[in-house]
Amino acid sequence: MPATEFDPLKFHEGLVAAGLIVPVGVEGIFGRNHVFEDVLERFNAAVTALAKDDGAEYFVYPPVIDRHVLEKSDYMDSFPHLAGTVFSFHGKELDARQLSVMIHNGEDWGQTQRMTSVTMNPAACYPVYPSFTGTVPAAGRLVTMLNWVFRHEPSPEPTRMQSFRVREFVRCGTAEQVVEWRDMWLRRGLALLESLGLPVQAEVASDPFFGKGGKMLAASQREQKLKFEVLVPVISRDKPTAVCSFNFHEGHFGEAFEIKTADGNTANTACLGFGLERVVMALFQTHGFDPSTWPTAVRSKLWS
Amino acid sequence: MPATEFDPLKFHEGLVAAGLIVPVGVEGIFGRNHVFEDVLERFNAAVTALAKDDGAEYFVYPPVIDRHVLEKSDYMDSFPHLAGTVFSFHGKELDARQLSVMIHNGEDWGQTQRMTSVTMNPAACYPVYPSFTGTVPAAGRLVTMLNWVFRHEPSPEPTRMQSFRVREFVRCGTAEQVVEWRDMWLRRGLALLESLGLPVQAEVASDPFFGKGGKMLAASQREQKLKFEVLVPVISRDKPTAVCSFNFHEGHFGEAFEIKTADGNTANTACLGFGLERVVMALFQTHGFDPSTWPTAVRSKLWS
Repeated sequence: MPATEFDPLKFHEGLVAAGLIVPVGVEGIFGRNHVFEDVLERFNAAVTALAKDDGAEYFVYPPVIDRHVLEKSDYMDSFPHLAGTVFSFHGKELDARQLSVMIHNGEDWGQTQRMTSVTMNPAACYPVYPSFTGTVPAAGRLVTMLNWVFRHEPSPEPTRMQSFRVREFVRCGTAEQVVEWRDMWLRRGLALLESLGLPVQAEVASDPFFGKGGKMLAASQREQKLKFEVLVPVISRDKPTAVCSFNFHEGHFGEAFEIKTADGNTANTACLGFGLERVVMALFQTHGFDPSTWPTAVRSKLWS
Repeated sequence: MPATEFDPLKFHEGLVAAGLIVPVGVEGIFGRNHVFEDVLERFNAAVTALAKDDGAEYFVYPPVIDRHVLEKSDYMDSFPHLAGTVFSFHGKELDARQLSVMIHNGEDWGQTQRMTSVTMNPAACYPVYPSFTGTVPAAGRLVTMLNWVFRHEPSPEPTRMQSFRVREFVRCGTAEQVVEWRDMWLRRGLALLESLGLPVQAEVASDPFFGKGGKMLAASQREQKLKFEVLVPVISRDKPTAVCSFNFHEGHFGEAFEIKTADGNTANTACLGFGLERVVMALFQTHGFDPSTWPTAVRSKLWS
């Protein structure tokens, strides 16, 4: 039975009251307790089991990436409002003393910081594309990762996080290879989430492009069916939450990072990612805050 | 047998050639492959097994934290050079267009970014202290976490990372409770690392405080034996690498975050952290780059 009515703030209060998350005073940032983590790890293991015969190479990348990746991939043209850049102090003794005074006086000390060569990782797949530079084998490449990603969109709504984990798969090859793989995973992802008792639906979707020009990009993305999402009601019945998304980039990253297929053409790429915290929250909303009371079929699927 | 001579760059080359790490073009940032991650996860599980009867509460926090935690804890007074702050774009349509032009022209676009309310997490224990605010039970608190931490110290030396994971324990209570626990873990940590065939030694140590004033702070910290490190030769025989560190903070965090013991005094805290990537690298250096060839005793300890 649902944990709460479909209300963002009540759902947040419920997660906190059950001890599943620990607020830290900033919206979209919180600690996860051992119960939350156990569900997350079990779901991630179920994804791994599903893909075990696919031959994906597994990597973990840090939560920060080379700033050039954002620059080369035109991320800042499309999503400048969501990016996080890492700044640092480069000063000497006297500057450090001024910085200290500013902080102890409660002043804005942003001016003491300078941009570094790293940014927050905006999507789990970004650090991987530069590693494909060159010619991929005839069968293409398939990589999977579990990375922390960052989006600058503070919100009191618990599924709208600034920092969260994504279990991601990236396929690189010809358009045909990539789209066939994407379609296979769309069926597979839906079946996995359905087997956990989640009322899922798949929909054509668009990315949150910035500004007026962004609206046209989003419309074009929808028209070409380049993005799909799998949605589950978590904080609203009418506006279900995306827990898994599929992006076909055509030659975008292939061009940016000079990736070629065996026949010498620009490689195509696609990725899919399970938003792990969102899947966990969808399970809590659908089955209740205490996993020991979840339906037997769901429990045996996760804790088998 | 050692993977390489004790040379930082040769060790880095060896890790890359074995496919264990994937360089990304920025010093101190790299991908980890499945072999690296398997060793890391197995070592982390060995730590968990060691602590299984201690009753520690487990949490995972994101790689970014509330900026106020750095401000309140005086982190920027001691380590301004190591901190990373997260900046973001707050502009409108026209500003976004300027940002895009700057990036495509290869100009410095730092001025388009403004400080946000989050910073990189500088140490695995930092997000926990605010959650202790108030009065802790008579038996104190014991918490364990696995968090990504950030240090702005780019270096070609592979054990000197900008972004890495720490398996951390934090104890909060009276000075007596905290020091007794720290001493117990110092013995336990040494025994665990020795059981993995690592030539460890424990030493009194100091934190990398900034500037001239920092030298005095470091000397005082050593004199009072507030910090210990467990060291293993990884990239140098003469200057072994710290793979585990123990900090006794006395009432520092208790005062900053208003944490009291049951008798109404300011609580004391101590923490210990295993630098997970460094432990993994110490194992690779000591036993070779291929875990299947490691001594049976080490293998059975990790893959039991």
